[in-house]
Amino acid sequence: MRRIALFAICLGLLAAPALAQTKADIQKLEDQWAAAVNRADAAALAAMYTTDADSLPAGAKMMKGQKAIEAFWKGAMDDMQDVKCTTIDVKSLGGAAAREIGTCSAMTKKAPTKQIDIKYVVIWQKEGGKWKQSLEIWNTDK
Amino acid sequence: MRRIALFAICLGLLAAPALAQTKADIQKLEDQWAAAVNRADAAALAAMYTTDADSLPAGAKMMKGQKAIEAFWKGAMDDMQDVKCTTIDVKSLGGAAAREIGTCSAMTKKAPTKQIDIKYVVIWQKEGGKWKQSLEIWNTDK
Repeated sequence: MRRIALFAICLGLLAAPALAQTKADIQKLEDQWAAAVNRADAAALAAMYTTDADSLPAGAKMMKGQKAIEAFWKGAMDDMQDVKCTTIDVKSLGGAAAREIGTCSAMTKKAPTKQIDIKYVVIWQKEGGKWKQSLEIWNTDK
Repeated sequence: MRRIALFAICLGLLAAPALAQTKADIQKLEDQWAAAVNRADAAALAAMYTTDADSLPAGAKMMKGQKAIEAFWKGAMDDMQDVKCTTIDVKSLGGAAAREIGTCSAMTKKAPTKQIDIKYVVIWQKEGGKWKQSLEIWNTDK
């Protein structure tokens, strides 16, 4: 009997961190991310990444850390507007992490403006009590 | 005292699944993956993915499931040789999942042959007692 009680308590402890993110939660975060890009707020954008986050951009070398990612996006924002990201699928990975698959569209600013469409993967992890991007990578279908 | 013992037992249970993969373990799996591509063994390659795996190729639409991934790679193998993949970083995500960052190089078969260099992210998860790719995505620096 005591063994069963112990098992139940342990299960409770194990289940606790499984209060993971839903697709709607992540979509909200992606909306914040897109809003930060659209108002060219690199600092707010950078705050959405973990300190040691990895970014693997299409068309640029991989980089590590909030500061490198902030500098990259600060540059990229110069020629981006109307960014909209759509969360397609979220899978919890052990409760403390989740992987998201999504797509984004944007327009370039410089003439002739053209539409950019990408698909991406983000790994979300908790840092300082907040869900942050610990990894981002994207590419295009073409 | 009993509370401390309980905590210790629970910690033990929590730590158990953390026997996760090392960088060397993943490199071994990547070597198997590359070997399967190099001998054009699509079935062996497909067996390295989870049943519902996601693949987000650079230059093609995202797809879901072992069968779709097998068909994709069966086609891609026709023009690939000398594939070599290098695991750069592995991070455990809750013990039952891990994310890998790496690079691959390959040569095309068709003349004029050219070198392909990509960087990638793979999420590894256990299925049927084996570590398998539950997600792959890649892109190029250029």
